[in-house]
Amino acid sequence: MRFKACEVEHKLSKEEFARREPALRVDLVNSQFDLLSAKHPVSLLIAGDDREGCEEVIDLLHEWLDARQMDTEVYLPRTKPERQYPFLWRYWNNAPRRGHVTLYYGHWIFDLIVERFLGQLSERELRLRTAEVCELERALAADGCVIRKIWIHTPRKELKRRLQRVKDHRYGWIAAEQDRTIHEHYRELVRIGEELVGKTDALHAPWTVVDGRDPEHRNLVLMETVRDALVAGPCTRLARQKPRKRTRVRSRLTGIHQRSAMKDGEYEERLARAQAHVADLSYRASEEGLATVLVFEGWDAAGKGGTIRRLTRPMAARDYRVVQIAAPSEEERARHYLWRFWRRIPRKGNVTIFDRSWYGRVLVERVEGLASEAEWRRAYDEIRAFEAQLVADGVLLRKFWLEIDADEQLARFQAREGTLFKRYKITEEDYRNRDQRPAYEKAADEMISRTHTRHAPWMVVPANEKRRARVMVLEAVCQSLERALDG
Amino acid sequence: MRFKACEVEHKLSKEEFARREPALRVDLVNSQFDLLSAKHPVSLLIAGDDREGCEEVIDLLHEWLDARQMDTEVYLPRTKPERQYPFLWRYWNNAPRRGHVTLYYGHWIFDLIVERFLGQLSERELRLRTAEVCELERALAADGCVIRKIWIHTPRKELKRRLQRVKDHRYGWIAAEQDRTIHEHYRELVRIGEELVGKTDALHAPWTVVDGRDPEHRNLVLMETVRDALVAGPCTRLARQKPRKRTRVRSRLTGIHQRSAMKDGEYEERLARAQAHVADLSYRASEEGLATVLVFEGWDAAGKGGTIRRLTRPMAARDYRVVQIAAPSEEERARHYLWRFWRRIPRKGNVTIFDRSWYGRVLVERVEGLASEAEWRRAYDEIRAFEAQLVADGVLLRKFWLEIDADEQLARFQAREGTLFKRYKITEEDYRNRDQRPAYEKAADEMISRTHTRHAPWMVVPANEKRRARVMVLEAVCQSLERALDG
Repeated sequence: MRFKACEVEHKLSKEEFARREPALRVDLVNSQFDLLSAKHPVSLLIAGDDREGCEEVIDLLHEWLDARQMDTEVYLPRTKPERQYPFLWRYWNNAPRRGHVTLYYGHWIFDLIVERFLGQLSERELRLRTAEVCELERALAADGCVIRKIWIHTPRKELKRRLQRVKDHRYGWIAAEQDRTIHEHYRELVRIGEELVGKTDALHAPWTVVDGRDPEHRNLVLMETVRDALVAGPCTRLARQKPRKRTRVRSRLTGIHQRSAMKDGEYEERLARAQAHVADLSYRASEEGLATVLVFEGWDAAGKGGTIRRLTRPMAARDYRVVQIAAPSEEERARHYLWRFWRRIPRKGNVTIFDRSWYGRVLVERVEGLASEAEWRRAYDEIRAFEAQLVADGVLLRKFWLEIDADEQLARFQAREGTLFKRYKITEEDYRNRDQRPAYEKAADEMISRTHTRHAPWMVVPANEKRRARVMVLEAVCQSLERALDG
Repeated sequence: MRFKACEVEHKLSKEEFARREPALRVDLVNSQFDLLSAKHPVSLLIAGDDREGCEEVIDLLHEWLDARQMDTEVYLPRTKPERQYPFLWRYWNNAPRRGHVTLYYGHWIFDLIVERFLGQLSERELRLRTAEVCELERALAADGCVIRKIWIHTPRKELKRRLQRVKDHRYGWIAAEQDRTIHEHYRELVRIGEELVGKTDALHAPWTVVDGRDPEHRNLVLMETVRDALVAGPCTRLARQKPRKRTRVRSRLTGIHQRSAMKDGEYEERLARAQAHVADLSYRASEEGLATVLVFEGWDAAGKGGTIRRLTRPMAARDYRVVQIAAPSEEERARHYLWRFWRRIPRKGNVTIFDRSWYGRVLVERVEGLASEAEWRRAYDEIRAFEAQLVADGVLLRKFWLEIDADEQLARFQAREGTLFKRYKITEEDYRNRDQRPAYEKAADEMISRTHTRHAPWMVVPANEKRRARVMVLEAVCQSLERALDG
C-alpha cells in the first residue's frame, strides 16, 4: 500500500464542513447511543506520519463523541518493565469494552515502526509480530468488535513547512523532537508504515489512509469512517466461520486409569526429590528470566489443588502466583474472554499457575451452553494462536489434565463431605456436573485432541492414585523446566 | 515494641497440633464462608525477620483456606516505574475486596524497612510514610475492613543455625542471598522493624508478634489470629467516629455569579495566550516529571466538558488522561470508594483530569442517600488525608467548582435539547437533580469549606459566562503549573 495514493488535491471549505457538521454529529451521537444496547465493542486506531494531525483528530473525537461511552488509550514506546511480558500483553490489557468506543493512539503500529526503525526487530521478528497483530484483530472481530484504523498521511514537504513555521506557532512544543525525527527519517518510517498497513489491512479491520494537509477534508473523512464503524455492526462472517484446522479427535484420551498404589517410602522419597528439584529450577528460572505458565484442568475432586500446593511449596512466594478461575466478573464479561487470562500472564522470571483456565470456554461454557457453538468451535483456533504467541515470546507452557473415573470421584465427594473442614468444597453443583459426565468427557477429549501441540502439549495424568499423580506432575514440570533452561 | 518479648520457650508437640487441627480448620472454613454474606474485606499482612517462616505460613494458609475467596499479593521492593507514582499508590491498587481474605506478603513494611536500611529514606521521610500507612489502614478499617498483621520473629542464633544447615537442606535456594543479608544486618533490620511495628500497632489493625522457632506453635498462633480476624467483624468504633477536624462552614461559597460578558476579541486573545502557555508548561512538566491532578466539579451543564477540552487541546495526547466518573462498576463497589481514584493517579510527568471525582462521596452519594451519614461525614477527613498524601509525594493538585445559577442551568438544558447532537446530554435525571438543588447547594458549600486546604485549594469559578470561566480556569492552571515548576 502506497500512502502517496491518497495525495490528491483535497479541499473542503470551512463553510461546507460547517454545513455538514450538525447532521454528522447527530448521526454519531445517536449511533453511539445505539451501541450501548447493541453491546459490542468498537475500536478505532489512530496513527500516521502526521503527529499533529493525529492529536487534533483525537481532540475532535473527544469533543464530538459522548465521553461516557468512550475510552482513550495512548501508547508510548514499550518501557523496560513492559518488555518483561509477551508482545501482545499490553494490547490485550486494554482490550475494548462492549458498548464503548475505544480510541487507540499509536497502539501496536507505532511500537513496531519504532522498534523496527531502531533495529530492535529483525525482518523475521517483524513478520512474526505482524502475524500476531492480525490474530489479535481477528479474535476481537470474531467476538463482535468493529475495528477501524486510520492513518493520517502528510507529505514530507508539508511537514517541513510546518517545522519552519514553528517559531510563529502558539504551541512551542510542536517543534518537539518527535516531529524533527519523523521529518528526518521520513522515507524509512513511511516505508515501514506502508508495509505494516498493507499487511494488516483486512475486511474485518480495514485501514483508511487520509491526506492530512487539509484539516476539513481530514476531519470529514475521519468522522465518516467513525460513523461507519458505529453503524456497521459486527462482522458476522468471521463469527460464523468454521475452525481453520480440523484435527481428528482421537477417542478416549481421557479415561486412562491406573490403580496401583505407590509404596509409602517411594512416594515420600520421589516427592521430596522432585520438590528439591523444583526449588533449584524455579530459582534458576527466576534468575534467568524464564516465564512459565502451568495450566491445570480435570474433573472436580481430581486433586488439582493438592498437586498445585505441593508444586508451589518449594517455590519462593515472590516468584509464583496461583490463579483460581471461576465465573467471570462484570468487567470481565464486558471484554473478550481471553482478556482476563492475558492480564495474568507472568513477566519474565515468574510462574503463573492456572487452576482452571481459558479451557473453560470449550468445557463448562460448551457443556452448559454459556457459549454458542460457533463461539466454542472458534475457540480451538483462538487458543492455539494465544498459546503460540506466548511460546513465541519465550514462555514455557505446560498443560495437565487430571483424570479420575466416576467411581473414584464419587468416593472423594463422599470423603470430603465426611471431613468437616473439607465439606465446603462440595456443593450441589458438583453433583449436577457429575450427571453431565458423558458430555464433559466428549468435550475434554475433543479439547485435548484439538489443542495438543508441540509447543504447548497436554499431559493426561491418571489421578485415581493421588500420590502417583502428584509425583508425575512435579517430575514433568521439572523435566520441562530443565529442558527450557538448558536448551 | 521489642520482638525479644515473644522469645519464650514455646513448644507445641506435633501430636497436640494434629489434635487441634480439625476443629480449627472447620472454624476457619465456616467463618470464611460466612464472610461472603457479611461482605466486608479481611486483610492479613505477613512479615517478619524469618523469611522461611513467612513462606511456610503462606503455603499453609493456601492449604487451609478456600482459595476461591482468597487473594494473595506479594510485594517485591518498588521498581523504578513504581516509584513514578505516589507512595501509597501500589498498596491502594491491591486494596482488599469485600467478602474475600487478602493475604499481603511484605507489603508496605518490607518496602519501608528496605528503603530505610539502604538510606533511601531519611528519618523524617520514614515518619511521614509511617503516618500515611496509618491513614491507609484507618481508612480501610473505617470502611469495614478487618486488618490483622503478623510478624514472625526468629532470633539471630537460630537463623545462623539454619544457614549452616543449608547444605543438607533439600531446597538449595534457602541459602538465597536474602537470608544471608537478613542474618548479616539482623540488628539494624530488626530495629527498624520494631519501630515500624510499634508505630503502626492500632486497635483496628493490631500486630501479633510470634516466635518462629517452633513451627507448630507458630502455625497455631497464626491460625488462631486468622480465625479471630474472620470472626471479629468490622471495627464499629471507627466507622461511627466523628470527623477529627470541624471547620466552620462559610455560607454561600457557591452562588457567586457574574454576568458581564467578555468582549469577542478579548476572549479569543486570552484563550489563545493561555493555551500557548499551557502547551509550554505541560511540556516542561512532562520533561521535569511533575505529576498533576485537576479536579472538576460543578452543576450539570456548568461547562466542565468544554473547559476540559480547551485545556487539553494544547497538551500532547500522551501526557494527559481525562477520567469521566460515573456510577461505580461491580469491581469498584467491591472495594473502598477511593480505590478507583487511586488507580488513576498519574505517574510523574503526566496529568490526570477528573471530570467529577471522589467528591461524589459528599455530593451525589450524600444527597441521594447512597452513602450513610457516618460514611460521608468521615469522607472529609479521608479526602483531606488522600489529597495530602498526593501532595506530599510532589503531585500538583487543583480543584475547580464551576458555578452557575438555576436559571442559567435551565436555559442550557433547553438549549441542549434544541441542538440535535447535544440532546443526549440531557436526561430526566438531570431534571430530577435540579429539583434537589437546595440539598446539593448545602452539600457543595460544606464540601468546599471542609476540604479547601492550602495544599489542595478549591477555586470557585463563576460560570454563568462560559467564556470567562474557561479563561479563568486555564489561567489558574498556568499559574499553578508555573509556581510548581519554578518553585
